[in-house]
Amino acid sequence: MSDNETTINELKQAIKKFRDDRDWQKYHTPKNLAESISIEAAELLEKFQWKSEEEIDELLNDPTYKSEVKEELADVFNYCLALSIALDIDLSEALLEKVKLNSEKYPVEKSKGEYKKYSKL
Amino acid sequence: MSDNETTINELKQAIKKFRDDRDWQKYHTPKNLAESISIEAAELLEKFQWKSEEEIDELLNDPTYKSEVKEELADVFNYCLALSIALDIDLSEALLEKVKLNSEKYPVEKSKGEYKKYSKL
Amino acid sequence: MSDNETTINELKQAIKKFRDDRDWQKYHTPKNLAESISIEAAELLEKFQWKSEEEIDELLNDPTYKSEVKEELADVFNYCLALSIALDIDLSEALLEKVKLNSEKYPVEKSKGEYKKYSKL
Amino acid sequence: MSDNETTINELKQAIKKFRDDRDWQKYHTPKNLAESISIEAAELLEKFQWKSEEEIDELLNDPTYKSEVKEELADVFNYCLALSIALDIDLSEALLEKVKLNSEKYPVEKSKGEYKKYSKL
Repeated sequence: MSDNETTINELKQAIKKFRDDRDWQKYHTPKNLAESISIEAAELLEKFQWKSEEEIDELLNDPTYKSEVKEELADVFNYCLALSIALDIDLSEALLEKVKLNSEKYPVEKSKGEYKKYSKL
Repeated sequence: MSDNETTINELKQAIKKFRDDRDWQKYHTPKNLAESISIEAAELLEKFQWKSEEEIDELLNDPTYKSEVKEELADVFNYCLALSIALDIDLSEALLEKVKLNSEKYPVEKSKGEYKKYSKL
Repeated sequence: MSDNETTINELKQAIKKFRDDRDWQKYHTPKNLAESISIEAAELLEKFQWKSEEEIDELLNDPTYKSEVKEELADVFNYCLALSIALDIDLSEALLEKVKLNSEKYPVEKSKGEYKKYSKL
Repeated sequence: MSDNETTINELKQAIKKFRDDRDWQKYHTPKNLAESISIEAAELLEKFQWKSEEEIDELLNDPTYKSEVKEELADVFNYCLALSIALDIDLSEALLEKVKLNSEKYPVEKSKGEYKKYSKL
């Protein structure tokens, strides 16, 4: 399976099955899952801590390091999916709506190349 | 578009177009994006700050509140996709590999209902 | 030394000596230190992840657990001090000014017992 | 009052008075306070988001920006103090113990100038 062919729903099903096989629904409250997203986000950030952009680019050539980064990103994504399941949120719809809002907030002609001036995105 | 039919790649395309239309690739470094995931994760957590699980369940009946939560979750997901683009990571593969690893780490027979004992997941 | 007698400046001196003995000033940039505060804050939060308030209260009777929490809190405080050194910020002044601002924002008569209504604090 | 003369205990007293005047003890649970530390840490990090070290150094010459950073740092410190009160932790002792542990973990002769190699600190 790859990003080319995998739907969000297929990934949700995998997360849901893992959770339900273990009877862990009770732990998947919104507050717990939001905490877990924050905790995993920090573990991802830790991979880049104290390192310059150049050092990170260099390190990313190392398959072990790259694979650790990939795993941390997967953990954040995992809990995003779990929260969207718990709250019955359509993640594709939520994302595309947000991109639309951002497109209006940062019109191309005004934002082109001027990231910081017009945006915190 | 909905989670039923939308592939990860379609969402990646939307994020990529938004970024490239504005010439913002240069800001999408791994460190910047990991920082942004952490920042957005905290904004999501803030929706639940100081509130009990019961108060949150009650609040989620309010469409305005629900929609704010949805937007914050979309922001986190947005930067997860952006980082997977920047690092050329297949997010579906990364997620399904992680679910597989977790399934081995927390075998059903040992973990059933016993979340905290066997797991930090 | 204890909180009764130790000044912020004495703690700053200890942090500064540790840093300078190792020639680590160059790593103590504002961005690096803010990232580190976020990372350590998440490690502190991880001590409470998946646990109810009641379970946490129970666990805090265990000296090993209590000591782990104490260490994580010390890590966050450590980097707060390091950032205040790097930016030449008087932390006592900053804190007392903020308490003053908060006192005006949440007047006692309006906020008494009504935390969530008047405050995100 | 300044860092030169202010003890941790004096700052704790200010935080405690603010909390108790409003009957907000009930909200100051370990989990709530750890969440709040994470949330405020992310707001601090947001001041540096998308910016290079050079841009940040430049911005810090602007008193308004500097004062915003100071306020965000005060918010993190505020909740660190609040958690140390809630858990009856001596913050000076915790910090100095941690510095001692770190000094043993990263001996000067091995760590001098070699931050990343021997340390995640």
